[in-house]
Amino acid sequence: MKNNVLIIGGGPAGLEAASGLQRLGYNVILIERTTMLGGHLASWDRLFPDGASATGALDGLLARMDGVKCFTDTEVQSINRLEKSYNVILSNGITVLADAVLVASGFDLFKAERKEEYGYGIYDHVITNADLEAWFASGSDTRIDSPNKIGFVHCVGSRDEKSGCRSCSKVCCATAVKQACEMKQAFPDAQIYCFYMDLRMFGRHYEDLYLGAQKEYGVRFIRGRVAEVSENVDGSLLVKAEDTVAGKPLKVTLDLLVLMAGMRPSAAGRRVGGLLQMPVEEDGFFAVRDGILSGQRSQLPGLFLAGAATGPKTLPETLADARGAVTEIDRYLSDVFPNAKNYKTLVRERW
Amino acid sequence: MKNNVLIIGGGPAGLEAASGLQRLGYNVILIERTTMLGGHLASWDRLFPDGASATGALDGLLARMDGVKCFTDTEVQSINRLEKSYNVILSNGITVLADAVLVASGFDLFKAERKEEYGYGIYDHVITNADLEAWFASGSDTRIDSPNKIGFVHCVGSRDEKSGCRSCSKVCCATAVKQACEMKQAFPDAQIYCFYMDLRMFGRHYEDLYLGAQKEYGVRFIRGRVAEVSENVDGSLLVKAEDTVAGKPLKVTLDLLVLMAGMRPSAAGRRVGGLLQMPVEEDGFFAVRDGILSGQRSQLPGLFLAGAATGPKTLPETLADARGAVTEIDRYLSDVFPNAKNYKTLVRERW
Repeated sequence: MKNNVLIIGGGPAGLEAASGLQRLGYNVILIERTTMLGGHLASWDRLFPDGASATGALDGLLARMDGVKCFTDTEVQSINRLEKSYNVILSNGITVLADAVLVASGFDLFKAERKEEYGYGIYDHVITNADLEAWFASGSDTRIDSPNKIGFVHCVGSRDEKSGCRSCSKVCCATAVKQACEMKQAFPDAQIYCFYMDLRMFGRHYEDLYLGAQKEYGVRFIRGRVAEVSENVDGSLLVKAEDTVAGKPLKVTLDLLVLMAGMRPSAAGRRVGGLLQMPVEEDGFFAVRDGILSGQRSQLPGLFLAGAATGPKTLPETLADARGAVTEIDRYLSDVFPNAKNYKTLVRERW
Repeated sequence: MKNNVLIIGGGPAGLEAASGLQRLGYNVILIERTTMLGGHLASWDRLFPDGASATGALDGLLARMDGVKCFTDTEVQSINRLEKSYNVILSNGITVLADAVLVASGFDLFKAERKEEYGYGIYDHVITNADLEAWFASGSDTRIDSPNKIGFVHCVGSRDEKSGCRSCSKVCCATAVKQACEMKQAFPDAQIYCFYMDLRMFGRHYEDLYLGAQKEYGVRFIRGRVAEVSENVDGSLLVKAEDTVAGKPLKVTLDLLVLMAGMRPSAAGRRVGGLLQMPVEEDGFFAVRDGILSGQRSQLPGLFLAGAATGPKTLPETLADARGAVTEIDRYLSDVFPNAKNYKTLVRERW
């Protein structure tokens, strides 16, 4: 008998772990709450730092999924520990006896309307990073109307004790700089401002992206928090900020303001975590057993974690984390079920 | 016949990949240039963000190495592509016919003496992050003599076009903040200054570390580059910096200055890369085939990369990267050598 592995979540982490486990010979069942695989990646346009196509990356992940049983529109209804396995009843009527469960429940974007002072959902020309990405992909959003002056607010729902979101979301700085460059390409006459606290361009090629934004695109980086946004009678936005480098307050009138909403624990993930009684940390993301040697084991036997379920991650980090989960699950199952018959699946690829 | 995999480099990336490949049934040969396994981790004391023991982490990696053939004091002498494999002659007289080669050659620390204006190797009380870590581990360094005023300079050999090191080294900010807190624990009366450009505390719990440094330890963070260091007649250091937030130049007299030397491509790695004709990028680190979907394939068949050989990484990132390399190598070998007999090794662990 092969071991069954249940993967909860069909975003990049779930997909990458599914294909890896399938190749190692496990019987993999992946469930996705929504109608579509891909998670947030499916609604993104281009990826930092090189502008790679998000669709291309997702296609790459989906192309490896041969043999994995995927159920979309499916959630966990109940879950019970039975000796060494978990009996999981799914909302589609199927029951799985899972020898290991991987929670890859991802993240929700911070709800930008919670920061009332920025006016999302109130003023016409205030949008989020996700809205802008959807516009890059579709070209349609009435709020984006040939803007001449565009602002990006970093750290919306990140590094913000008042919102109960103390930690950094890690990906917003690089996303903002990428989107700023793309807006300058779309509107060559526009002047673009980024309001930031610390520019966290830490990854390979990120610094090039940042220098290019300044030199090639003339993006103006202003170190300071936006204090308040209000709407003028003509629909333009009056933004008040503190320029901490110039040491004085600053007012600027903009045609479009983009809020870089941070990564928050997924509400659906929290629900599943509750069914599994899986501990969360103060930051709201799931606790791991060892943050250095293994960030993919939960504190409970047979339950594993991958991707943004354990905190903000870039896409390559999420995929690496998923591969780590494959290793951990394989180790666990080989040990706990030494007599199971899991044969490697050969996958032909071009090299 | 099992497939042979040669791993070049016995730091964390090499060790983690070796144990993973061994478990999947491959015949793994790991070579390490120096006398000791562990790379930089072996000379580190504690790890950010939680102060975990570096020795403990290394022991965890070494404990999984059963069955791997390790040769220390060993380098590659020559390497030739033979049809589908590589014929590798090692400096210890052994020849390996490797079906896959993983380059896990790590990094060198930036040579701080190259930044003459900081006076490393000239003034008595200027040390590096690595020197300080060695002192934490050993307690012995004559340059550290009950300092009352201590400064940390971030970005030494990082984000510095003049030194030919444009990119961010990713780990120095968190290391500096960790070391600043540890120095305050060691010298409770000391005043500590960190000179930074952007505080890149991007990972899980890093923000807590940063807030704790300010609130609990009273570390003063000054945003600006150190322009010049000189030595007073009593051996103390006069540091001139620009405080870009206060908008004025600043002078401070310190008893100890710690330079956060960045991560640079390993010279030994470059040598091996040359033998393999493996392309490097403008930043001096090895080029990968696809930075999003796979950061572990090189641009050449059968040659793989893991860890800091492809750019600065934290320890957990390095380990995740190594696990990704295991997946990639397993995929490659299953495809190119479908008739090889690689049987999984069972490893008993406590769960």
